[in-house]
Amino acid sequence: VAVDKGVDFANYFCTYGFLYHQKEMLSDRVRMDAYYNAVFENKHHFEGKAVLDVGTGSGILAIWSAQAGARKVYAVEATKMAEHARELVKANNLQDIVEVIEESMEDVILPEKVDVIISEWMGYFLLRESMFDSVICARERWLKPSGIMYPSHARMWLAPIRSGLVDQKMSDYEDAMNDWHGFVNETESYYGVDMRVLTKPFAEEQRKYYLKTSMWNNLHPNQVIGTPVIIKEIDCSTVTINDILGVRASVSSSISAENTRLCGFAGWFDVHFRGSHENLAQQEIELTTAPSEDFGTHWGQQVFLLHPPTDIWNIASAVYQQVLHRMNLHPDIFTVP
Amino acid sequence: VAVDKGVDFANYFCTYGFLYHQKEMLSDRVRMDAYYNAVFENKHHFEGKAVLDVGTGSGILAIWSAQAGARKVYAVEATKMAEHARELVKANNLQDIVEVIEESMEDVILPEKVDVIISEWMGYFLLRESMFDSVICARERWLKPSGIMYPSHARMWLAPIRSGLVDQKMSDYEDAMNDWHGFVNETESYYGVDMRVLTKPFAEEQRKYYLKTSMWNNLHPNQVIGTPVIIKEIDCSTVTINDILGVRASVSSSISAENTRLCGFAGWFDVHFRGSHENLAQQEIELTTAPSEDFGTHWGQQVFLLHPPTDIWNIASAVYQQVLHRMNLHPDIFTVP
Ligand SMILES: Nc1ncnc2c1ncn2[C@@H]1O[C@H](CSCC[C@H](N)C(=O)O)[C@@H](O)[C@H]1O
Ligand SMILES: Nc1ncnc2c1ncn2[C@@H]1O[C@H](CSCC[C@H](N)C(=O)O)[C@@H](O)[C@H]1O
Repeated sequence: VAVDKGVDFANYFCTYGFLYHQKEMLSDRVRMDAYYNAVFENKHHFEGKAVLDVGTGSGILAIWSAQAGARKVYAVEATKMAEHARELVKANNLQDIVEVIEESMEDVILPEKVDVIISEWMGYFLLRESMFDSVICARERWLKPSGIMYPSHARMWLAPIRSGLVDQKMSDYEDAMNDWHGFVNETESYYGVDMRVLTKPFAEEQRKYYLKTSMWNNLHPNQVIGTPVIIKEIDCSTVTINDILGVRASVSSSISAENTRLCGFAGWFDVHFRGSHENLAQQEIELTTAPSEDFGTHWGQQVFLLHPPTDIWNIASAVYQQVLHRMNLHPDIFTVP
Repeated sequence: VAVDKGVDFANYFCTYGFLYHQKEMLSDRVRMDAYYNAVFENKHHFEGKAVLDVGTGSGILAIWSAQAGARKVYAVEATKMAEHARELVKANNLQDIVEVIEESMEDVILPEKVDVIISEWMGYFLLRESMFDSVICARERWLKPSGIMYPSHARMWLAPIRSGLVDQKMSDYEDAMNDWHGFVNETESYYGVDMRVLTKPFAEEQRKYYLKTSMWNNLHPNQVIGTPVIIKEIDCSTVTINDILGVRASVSSSISAENTRLCGFAGWFDVHFRGSHENLAQQEIELTTAPSEDFGTHWGQQVFLLHPPTDIWNIASAVYQQVLHRMNLHPDIFTVP
């Protein structure tokens, strides 16, 4: 469904107002380890510096930045969560360094430009419901020319997959249609109204819902049946809002698994903490949300199913490219047309 | 959570844009039978008349009105569902009588005033997310002074109940808190941040979520342990928007069941189709959403739990009244403060 922008926005902040949701993020060990290591293995980027944490939430990244030696941390948070962040900062005795500001990043006025912008802005499949716009806006207004972005780089990946989801969704769809036919009969016999004319639109609606909407999934690596390809690379220090408005990529990949079905594609992302050209990281850290047996994240992967799945184990690259082309990767839609 | 009004509004219309959701309503036999009987057992209200269907959805009430003999039916629907309604009207060969208008009721201009306004506007516990405002607005602008409202009357009920939900929610809450304590320990040991200061706010948030938010439930009649009381009576022909802004009632009831616990209260509603003073129904029809073994509706009941449940089988009416007073019955909030 195309939902009004204002709705997404308000729902979005609504969620972040809950400690429960912050806790979910704080319990994602892969995410936490990556940011923790990025900060504490690169203390030279923080020592004596001014840092801006865009969307501080519980305050965790601001607190780590301070513990790593920052002179001053501006921790900006739009929701009431800011009050909890302030309490947490105080309880950890960092109130002289971390200043929590309850405001939308777009409206904040800081007393100085900063050396580092740290933020955990990544949404599903990187850009879906992400707040990267706000981070870019913060960078343009408040980062010193020599400043560093944490993370510094991001990439979007796509890979061919097999998945039992395709059968499950197909059978859900068939159940829904069987149910519909019973409904049409009952409405005719009990209430004298012939609903058959709506069968086609209902089928389309259900197909769209069950078969064409992308979905969250935590894949096992062995469900990836071909080479993952990069469909977008982002340098967080230079990317503009225009660059991330839509993602269209023409790529090819080959299916490596044998005797399997191509059931669809999975999208995921990774980000890197590399510092900047002039001020490289001592220890480069990666945070990946790729399918993993032991190191899954709350982001999982975004799955786009194909209907019907293709029963070949070596799909012609022409067909494959065509499939990739057909995908509308605009982050707000994520449907396979 | 207090969600922005605009959000509720957009989400609301978003849902109604799906045939799936219309089908759910069309499959509610209690609802369907009541409207069907109201129309076809009172054909004298429809024969040769002009009818307005506020929020026609699939078009069902407009079609019945036409089948019952209406001269003209204006079927107003704000969402794209209007297109499906139009198709359905045509497939049932009523396009000369039923005019589907895709517009918000508040903006519609009709060529004449109408004799009947029919609408299925009832939300959970009658007024929650209901569209009664739009019906009142339609009545003030488009109903003839002698016109009839379908339904003509509505009532809200409240009754003391027992329910295992209270224990389930209590144990969910306890699980959430145990989990939190593990989380606090891990965050301290792995990431060097002391989260204990957030334990109290987290507990409050979870209490609110699990224990103080009202919830949908389909109760069995034997879970009602005392006399249901009416907390609001509405005459649809005269009620104003002000009258339904908030519902505050001071009522008392007595617990009739023995050896049980008072676990909370259930709210439900009924509506009646009685015609008007000057033009009574030949057959008065009732649609009730009270707890029922065989005739449950998609509205179910709205349950407000008490924590802890009161372990007495004859609660003093003073205490009971106090409890009722404490309930905030404003339809947008539905929490027990
Ligand atoms: N434009 C904006 N201005 C201020 N805060 C924003 C924002 N957009 C999103 N946020 C906030 O950014 C947070 C992102 S979630 C990440 C929270 C925290 N940095 C952590 O890593 O755990 C949310 O709390 C959200 O409310
Ligand atoms: N102000 C308004 N103007 C026009 N349509 C409205 C409206 N408020 C709600 N609606 C529509 O009213 C419908 C209510 S659901 C009831 C549908 C149908 N009358 C039936 O009984 O099955 C929804 O389709 C919703 O989109």
